[in-house]
Amino acid sequence: MGMRLATVITPTGTTAAVLDGDRWRALPATDLSSLLAAADGDGRWDAGRIASATGAELTGAVPVSPLPRPGKVVCCGLNYGDHIRETGRELPTHPTLFAKFADTLTGPRDELVLPSDAQWDWEAELAVVVGATLRRADRDQARAAIAGYTVANDVSARDWQYRTLQWLQGKAWDASTPVGPVVVTPDEIDPVAGVDVVCRINGEQVQRGNTSTLVFDAADLLAYVSTFATLRPGDLVLTGTPGGVGVAREPQRFLADGDVLETAIDGIGTLRNTVRLTA
Amino acid sequence: MGMRLATVITPTGTTAAVLDGDRWRALPATDLSSLLAAADGDGRWDAGRIASATGAELTGAVPVSPLPRPGKVVCCGLNYGDHIRETGRELPTHPTLFAKFADTLTGPRDELVLPSDAQWDWEAELAVVVGATLRRADRDQARAAIAGYTVANDVSARDWQYRTLQWLQGKAWDASTPVGPVVVTPDEIDPVAGVDVVCRINGEQVQRGNTSTLVFDAADLLAYVSTFATLRPGDLVLTGTPGGVGVAREPQRFLADGDVLETAIDGIGTLRNTVRLTA
Repeated sequence: MGMRLATVITPTGTTAAVLDGDRWRALPATDLSSLLAAADGDGRWDAGRIASATGAELTGAVPVSPLPRPGKVVCCGLNYGDHIRETGRELPTHPTLFAKFADTLTGPRDELVLPSDAQWDWEAELAVVVGATLRRADRDQARAAIAGYTVANDVSARDWQYRTLQWLQGKAWDASTPVGPVVVTPDEIDPVAGVDVVCRINGEQVQRGNTSTLVFDAADLLAYVSTFATLRPGDLVLTGTPGGVGVAREPQRFLADGDVLETAIDGIGTLRNTVRLTA
Repeated sequence: MGMRLATVITPTGTTAAVLDGDRWRALPATDLSSLLAAADGDGRWDAGRIASATGAELTGAVPVSPLPRPGKVVCCGLNYGDHIRETGRELPTHPTLFAKFADTLTGPRDELVLPSDAQWDWEAELAVVVGATLRRADRDQARAAIAGYTVANDVSARDWQYRTLQWLQGKAWDASTPVGPVVVTPDEIDPVAGVDVVCRINGEQVQRGNTSTLVFDAADLLAYVSTFATLRPGDLVLTGTPGGVGVAREPQRFLADGDVLETAIDGIGTLRNTVRLTA
């Protein structure tokens, strides 16, 4: 019994919500971060407990950033086999991981307000939402702890990313990573079988990859991270981006003021963010 | 009017506290994270407001990890000029930055319980505690927002750190980074003039550096980070480690089970953590 979960804003504030046909129904928490934290049980994500708490229909509800307070946002780089092979690299033995801050995230329709003097690039990604506390988990335990999947775009300042050996300063700009619009439970979508991850700029497709070619899948990544860091409900793991980013193009291409950046995954939905470059 | 602040545990729970001679006095918050968040004012750290709230004497108070809930922990690598020069590198133009999680931190006397199958190395560091919200700050604004300084040891799993290009997985192990024992306000200590940062293993000195040789000082780092990410009260910025780490020795040396790791900065205090390597 698959669910599409979100944090929505209504005329009376934000609430966790679940989609019922084309109507949003309230769930008993102010947002998905709180809902997932309260549902943390015996190491497994229990979708049934959420479903049974579904409340009244909401009017005028609009999805916002689904997870306002993740304790950890972990990102994987260099994870699409087809992209790695096309660049002539060997497939990696270990996932390349870096972190973002909670403040780095923004909503599925928010403007991306970014300084004009940096090189802004796109990275469409499948993101995994953690649904139960995980520590030193194996793949099966990790898989059972996945609350669902959402869409993210790891928008990156390439010049800052490559100023030093560590990518953080290109990856952790406030409100630069749109996430959402919904979190889809694992019985609705199977990234191992494969879903397409697509990025478009002003309607032009610039990335299309399939999650079946991920070197490290969602369960691999959660298990690996849980070896060194406890994952908790509401934490987010971004799985990496396929080929087609702007910095690798000839000539290079970066986001321009007014560009409409769309990030879409079949079975989840579409982020649509307008780029606003400021002085 | 300098202060030595801490989060202490007493028989009745934790509280923020200030040292008065050799006695701890309560401050009106359960820990320094809460105290600093409540004191966030007009972009400046206001030590006077804290001092005026000093309450009753505490008995049986022991400092624990001072900042239990930093929203951001930012670390700088390759920042000691003498160490960089001795390795033959050029001085960097930009600070090399990476992140830790709040869960990565632990207390000034806690055991470091770590898996025995990794290469555990030491990195004594001066840490800067943010006292006011900072966004796109210049050096003067950044300096005015420093709540104080504390001691940290960025204990690192070297083999994990170098598995991939990004250091996070060697740097973000749960409860691996001791911090404390106190936060000393900037009128008590001047890292620009220089204080010694020392690391000892079982009493043997393995690192000694002076903060006057930092390429990027505390104000530089806070201003730089605030260009891309808002810093908030209670956030922590680790300034990097001087020469003498185990991985750079001939032969290499790593922490062994039972080692007593001491990390000391003149004018602040000493972390004393016993290493427990487990299967």
